[in-house]
Amino acid sequence: MSERQKAGLLRTSHAGETVTIKGWVQKRRDLGGLIFADIRDRSGIVQVVFNPDVSKEALATAEQIRSEFVVSITGKVLEREEATKNGNMATGAIEIAAEEISILNKAKSPAFQIEDDVDASEDVRLKYRYLDLRRKPLQETFRLRHQATQAIRNFLNEEEFYEMETPMLTKSTPEGARDYLVPSRVHPGEFYALPQSPQLFKQLLMISGFEKYYQIARCFRDEDLRADRQPEFTQIDIETSFMTTEDIISMTERMMMRVMKEVKDVDVQVPFPRLPYAEAMERFGSDKPDTRFGLELVDVREAVKSAEFKVFQDAIQNNGRVSAINVKGQAANFSRKDIDALTDFVKIYGAKGLAWVKVEEDGALKGPIAKFLDENVQSQLKDVLSAEAGDFLVFVADKTKVVFDSLGALRSKLGRELGLIDESLFNFLWVTDWPLFEYDEEEGRYYAAHHPFTMPAAADIDKLETDPASVKAEAYDIVLNGYELGGGSQRIYQMDLQNRMFEVLGFSNEEAQEQFGFLLDALESGAPPHGGIALGYDRFIMLLSGSTNLRDTILFPKTASATDPLTDAPDPVSKKQLDELYLDIQQKSAGKDE
Amino acid sequence: MSERQKAGLLRTSHAGETVTIKGWVQKRRDLGGLIFADIRDRSGIVQVVFNPDVSKEALATAEQIRSEFVVSITGKVLEREEATKNGNMATGAIEIAAEEISILNKAKSPAFQIEDDVDASEDVRLKYRYLDLRRKPLQETFRLRHQATQAIRNFLNEEEFYEMETPMLTKSTPEGARDYLVPSRVHPGEFYALPQSPQLFKQLLMISGFEKYYQIARCFRDEDLRADRQPEFTQIDIETSFMTTEDIISMTERMMMRVMKEVKDVDVQVPFPRLPYAEAMERFGSDKPDTRFGLELVDVREAVKSAEFKVFQDAIQNNGRVSAINVKGQAANFSRKDIDALTDFVKIYGAKGLAWVKVEEDGALKGPIAKFLDENVQSQLKDVLSAEAGDFLVFVADKTKVVFDSLGALRSKLGRELGLIDESLFNFLWVTDWPLFEYDEEEGRYYAAHHPFTMPAAADIDKLETDPASVKAEAYDIVLNGYELGGGSQRIYQMDLQNRMFEVLGFSNEEAQEQFGFLLDALESGAPPHGGIALGYDRFIMLLSGSTNLRDTILFPKTASATDPLTDAPDPVSKKQLDELYLDIQQKSAGKDE
Repeated sequence: MSERQKAGLLRTSHAGETVTIKGWVQKRRDLGGLIFADIRDRSGIVQVVFNPDVSKEALATAEQIRSEFVVSITGKVLEREEATKNGNMATGAIEIAAEEISILNKAKSPAFQIEDDVDASEDVRLKYRYLDLRRKPLQETFRLRHQATQAIRNFLNEEEFYEMETPMLTKSTPEGARDYLVPSRVHPGEFYALPQSPQLFKQLLMISGFEKYYQIARCFRDEDLRADRQPEFTQIDIETSFMTTEDIISMTERMMMRVMKEVKDVDVQVPFPRLPYAEAMERFGSDKPDTRFGLELVDVREAVKSAEFKVFQDAIQNNGRVSAINVKGQAANFSRKDIDALTDFVKIYGAKGLAWVKVEEDGALKGPIAKFLDENVQSQLKDVLSAEAGDFLVFVADKTKVVFDSLGALRSKLGRELGLIDESLFNFLWVTDWPLFEYDEEEGRYYAAHHPFTMPAAADIDKLETDPASVKAEAYDIVLNGYELGGGSQRIYQMDLQNRMFEVLGFSNEEAQEQFGFLLDALESGAPPHGGIALGYDRFIMLLSGSTNLRDTILFPKTASATDPLTDAPDPVSKKQLDELYLDIQQKSAGKDE
Repeated sequence: MSERQKAGLLRTSHAGETVTIKGWVQKRRDLGGLIFADIRDRSGIVQVVFNPDVSKEALATAEQIRSEFVVSITGKVLEREEATKNGNMATGAIEIAAEEISILNKAKSPAFQIEDDVDASEDVRLKYRYLDLRRKPLQETFRLRHQATQAIRNFLNEEEFYEMETPMLTKSTPEGARDYLVPSRVHPGEFYALPQSPQLFKQLLMISGFEKYYQIARCFRDEDLRADRQPEFTQIDIETSFMTTEDIISMTERMMMRVMKEVKDVDVQVPFPRLPYAEAMERFGSDKPDTRFGLELVDVREAVKSAEFKVFQDAIQNNGRVSAINVKGQAANFSRKDIDALTDFVKIYGAKGLAWVKVEEDGALKGPIAKFLDENVQSQLKDVLSAEAGDFLVFVADKTKVVFDSLGALRSKLGRELGLIDESLFNFLWVTDWPLFEYDEEEGRYYAAHHPFTMPAAADIDKLETDPASVKAEAYDIVLNGYELGGGSQRIYQMDLQNRMFEVLGFSNEEAQEQFGFLLDALESGAPPHGGIALGYDRFIMLLSGSTNLRDTILFPKTASATDPLTDAPDPVSKKQLDELYLDIQQKSAGKDE
C-alpha cells in the first residue's frame, strides 16, 4: 500500500519518478501503435501510455483491458509536451509511461458509462448502484458528506457534547407518523418499533444528567414517500440541559458557520434572521421561506376593502384574506395562456382562481378585474405593492390557509422560473413563535404541532386549557433556502405540565400512563430544564452538494415504493421464519403486491 | 449558560468568586442551624453551605430540598478551614456559601440511592435506567465511550477513510444468525431485514471505488441472548481496497495504540503477537486466548505413550489427544473436594473426567493415576511440563475438541480464581490461519467459518473442492484479554471464485443467484481486491472500562429476554397496525408469552 500513488494527484513535480497506481480503466484509446488509458481512482484520473519502446509486454497486456477493468500499473511520470497538455484535467500536464501492468480484475461491459452526466434511468442507476456511485458527482457528494459529518462532530465535541447511541428496537407510540414494526420472536404477538427519532431517549439522557448529547441518528418513518422523503433518514440529533433557547440557537448558528466554512468555504453571517411563524406565512406564504428572492406576499385587504369585487368582498367578510404578489417588471412576459397556467397551478392548492392586473405605461391597471377597482383602490394597491409601469400583479382571495398555500407555492414557482434565485446563496433563517397545537377539524381535537413534549411559551401556559389555539410553543425551526433543515424546542420538564399537555391532546390518564408512564415517572425524578434540536441531515447534504435529488445524498436509497432495486428488498421470507415469529400473512394480501 | 460553572471543577483558585451552579442534590445534611448540600452535575460534586448569616431566604428554600431535586445556586466560593477539608473529594478544599437558590424541579424519593455501588437488582436498575445512569461509574463509562469513539474516528479520518452510512432496511439472507425482520406495508407479505453487519454493503462500496470506508454501525441478531450478547450492538466497521492483510493488521494496531493512549493513557506495544489458530488451540485451548497469565496446555501424548492407563491409550489410539496443565506450586491448595469440583467443571465441556497428580517433595508424582505412570513416564512428564515439587498437574484425555474446550475453560477458571491475572494489562494479539470452513456433522455439509465472502489462502485455493477441511482463510481475529474483539479478512473479489465458494457451501446456482445475484454481478463489474475488519465496540468499551457486564456499556440495553423494562418494549400493537401490514398473529401463540 505504502508505495501506491494517488492517480489524481500526480503533477509535473512528480516527473521522473517511477510510480505505481491502482484503479479502474476509465477509457482506452489505440493510436499509432500506442495505447492510451485513463486510469481512475478515488483521487481522480491520470493518463497512462503504453509504448512498445518502453515495454512490449505491458503493451500486450494493455491490449486486453476494457473500461472498468481494475489494474495495477507501474511506470515513469513524464511531463507531456506542451501541445498535448490538457488544461481540463488536474493531471493533464503529465502522463505515465507504463513499464508494467497487471490486470487485478476484469469487468464486463457496464450497464451504463461511468460519466459525470448519465442518461440511464434512475431505476437502472439504483439497480447498478455500485456503478452509479463511481461517477464523479456522487463520489464528491459522499466526500462532502464525510467532511460535513466530521465538521459537525468536531464542533460538538469541542462544545463538550457526548456522542451517545440510543436504541433502534424501541416502543411503538401512536402519536406522529407510522412506525416501522419489528416482530418479537421471544414475545409472540409483540413488536418493537424502529425510532422515528430518539426524542424520548434523548430527554431521558438529560434526566440522567449527561447535559449535552448528540447523535448522528438513523430514523424511520413508514409514510408514503415523496421525492424528498425516504423510509430511513439521518438526523443530527442534539439535546442539552440548562441551556436557554437563545443558547441553543446561537450554538446551532456557530455549528452551521463552521460547516459552511469547512465544507463550502462560505462565510455565513450570524445571527441568522428570525421570522415569527405568523410573519413568515404573511410575507412568504410558507413556514420555510426561501429568502433568496423577493416576490413577497402583501396583504391588500385594506387597499381593496371598497372594491366592488365579490370574490374579494367574500373573502374579507368570511374572515379570509386577500393577498397579492407584485411580479416586478414581468407584465409583458405573461400571455393569457401563461396566466391560465398559473391559474391552474394555484388551483392545486385549493384556490378558486387567480385574479390579476398589469400596470400600464400610464399607471393604469389593466386586466379582467380592473373594472372593479376604482381610481382610489388602484392608487392604494399600487402604493401598498410598490407597483410601477410594467409590473404584473396577481391576487388570491380565499380562506387564509388557501391564500398562503397557493401564493406561497406560486411565489416559489415564479422565483425559480423567472431565474430570480441566486444559487450561490445560503440563506439561513429561524422561524419562531410557532403555535403549540394544530386543530383537526375532522376529528375535532387538537394535535401537537411539533410533538407532545414541546414546552408552551411561558406567557401562554395559563391558556393551555382555555384557549389552546392561541398558545405558542417555545420552538424554533431552522430554514435554509426554502427547505426546513430542522427544528427544536424547549421540552416540558415538569410532570404536572406534561400531564396537562396530554389532557389537552385528549389522552385519558390510563392512555398517558400506558404510553408515556416511564416519561412521567422520569419527569418526577429530578428532570432538569432541557431542550434541543434535530436537523435533517440528508436534506442538508442535498443543499450543500447543490443537488435537488435526496436520493443522491444516500448511498443505497429506496425507490418511491420503498424498494431497493439493487438487493430486491423487501422480499418474501420462508414459512419457517414466519412461524418463528408466530405470524401469518393475511390472505387478502394475495396478489396485491406489485 | 455562559455564567454557569461546573460544580466538580471548582478549586481553591476560585475562592472569592461568586458562581452559579446548576445540578442535582446528591445529599443534604442539617447541622447546627446550617444546611449542607452536596450538589452534583456532570463534572462532579461540590458542597454548598446555607448559612442564615449569608442568606436567611436561601436557607429557608434549602429546607425544602431533597435528594435528586434540581437546583440553581449562586454563592461565593470559600476555601474551607484546613480541618474540614475533604481530601477524598476533588472539590474538597472549597465550599460555596449560598446566597441564592432556586428549585428548578422537584424529585420524588428515588427507587434507589444514586451511589457508586448500588444494591438494587439489575431489573430495577434497567426500569429506572435514568436514575442508574446518574451513578458515577456509568457516567464515566459513557464519557469514556464518547472519547474512544472520537479517538477512533480521528484516527480513521487521518488515514483518509470516509465515514459512510449503509442501510438498515435491507434484504434477509439465510446464512448466518437469525435476522430481525421488518414487515413491508407497501409490499404485503414481504419483509426487510435489519443488518447483521454491513458486510455486503461495505464490499459494494469498495466496488464503487470509495477505497476506504468506516462506520460505527448498529447491527442486529435475533439470537438467544447470553450475558455478552445484545439484540442490537455496535461495531467499528472498516473496509479497504488494495490493502494487504499486513496493511490492515498494521493499521488496526495503530488505531488500537491511539485509543489506548488517548483513553487509558496506556502504551501498548506493536506489532501485536500473532498466533496461528492451531497453535492458539494447542497452547490455550481457545481461539481467543487470554495471555495475561500462563497455565498453558501441553500436549503430553509423547510422554505418556507407554503409560498403561486405558484413558490415555484410548484417546491416543482414537486420534484424540492427552493434554495437561501444570498448576504451578498449587499442589497444597487443592483438596480432594476442590479437585472433585474441577472434575465437575470439565464435565460441562464434555470431558469424562480430570486426571491429576501432585509433585511430591522428593519429585515423585502422587495421585490416583500415579500407579499407571512408571518412572520413565513420570520423568518425561515432569520434563515436558517443567514440573517441580509442589506443582499440581491436571490432564484431560479425549477427542481433541473436548480436550481443548475443557482444559481451555479450566485454564481460564484457574487463572481467575488463583489471582494469576494482572488486571492492569491489555494483552492484544492476532489469531491467524483460520480454517475457511466448519463441517456440520449432523447436516453433512460445510459452513463458512467466518462468512461466505472470505478469501481462501492463496496456496489453498486449489483444494477448495477436493479437501475443503484443509483450506485456510485469509482471515485474522483480534483478541484482547481473552475476548474476541473482532475479526476480518480479505474478501473474494472474483466472481468465479465466489461461485466456487457458493458451490462448496451447497448453494445451487439458482439459490446463489436469488440471494447474492447482485454481489456476483458486482464482482463481474470491476471489483478491486478488498478486505477489512469489524470490531465489537460494546465489548471493547466493556474491557476499557474494566466492567464485566456488557449492559453497563449500552445506554438502554435489553434484558436476557430481549425486553426493555424501562419502556416495556416489545409491546402488542393495534389491529389497525397489523392490518396495514397484512399480518395476523398465529393462534397457537396465545398464552405463550412471558
